[in-house]
Amino acid sequence: MSRLTRMIERLSTQQACIDHVARAIAGQPGVVLEIGLGKGRTVDHMREVMPDREIYAFDGFVHAPPAAVPDDDHLFLGDFRETLITPPDHLRGQAIFAHADIGSEDRDADAVLAPIVGERLVSWLRPGAFVASDRDLKVQAWQRLSVLDGQPWQYFIYRT
Amino acid sequence: MSRLTRMIERLSTQQACIDHVARAIAGQPGVVLEIGLGKGRTVDHMREVMPDREIYAFDGFVHAPPAAVPDDDHLFLGDFRETLITPPDHLRGQAIFAHADIGSEDRDADAVLAPIVGERLVSWLRPGAFVASDRDLKVQAWQRLSVLDGQPWQYFIYRT
Repeated sequence: MSRLTRMIERLSTQQACIDHVARAIAGQPGVVLEIGLGKGRTVDHMREVMPDREIYAFDGFVHAPPAAVPDDDHLFLGDFRETLITPPDHLRGQAIFAHADIGSEDRDADAVLAPIVGERLVSWLRPGAFVASDRDLKVQAWQRLSVLDGQPWQYFIYRT
Repeated sequence: MSRLTRMIERLSTQQACIDHVARAIAGQPGVVLEIGLGKGRTVDHMREVMPDREIYAFDGFVHAPPAAVPDDDHLFLGDFRETLITPPDHLRGQAIFAHADIGSEDRDADAVLAPIVGERLVSWLRPGAFVASDRDLKVQAWQRLSVLDGQPWQYFIYRT
């Protein structure tokens, strides 16, 4: 399969994931976390389908176009392992949805990072929150959902 | 429409375009030109659907992953206006398909560049060649085809 087709499948699955969770959490309070701002495409989509949610983004550095970059109060820059370790008081236990788009082409490195991100996320989440990722975050206490199993790209959706 | 949805539509249209032209030129001799290597996704797709074609790529600089970058004999680096101006003898009039993925977010700059790219391409093309672009290349002698008009993203396909 070409890199072009794989990219289409990956983005289509991300879109289906965000749309699904946005519907599932409608009417429930809570903020949204985007772990891996990247080019800002998924944050832009989150803003469109969840216009009333506060969205907080995390990344090592900014490489999204300016219009897609959250303001300083909603942006955590630095290594995920550091920026996720302790939520600020106003965000502790407040996220109803966390999307961790953290996969790279280095599967071995990803397999080390993913469970760390999963463990760090726990203290940010509300009870019943949704977590979605392109890698298995391996948090025992979460229930893995099969809602995206028909999508062409493997994705992991959990409920806490 | 979100940046995520727009990207899915753009890439899906590129895929449909390449697949369409690959079928249309099957059995005809000629090389392929990719104007705007970018991340190398479309070149990778061209290799998959046209495995026996020689593919030549043009870009200002290399920003594709190494596996997607053509070897030095198939890569023209520099401003398109310069690298396209005079084909080397072995490529003059030899291209059966040229794909010019040159659009940026600056529509005014694109409107200046696109007809220059179109004009420069003429001497590279075989009679009956296909040209596809995300911008109107405005070459009077080419016939615009409507084959992708059902696609969600606007694309321009011409036959010389």
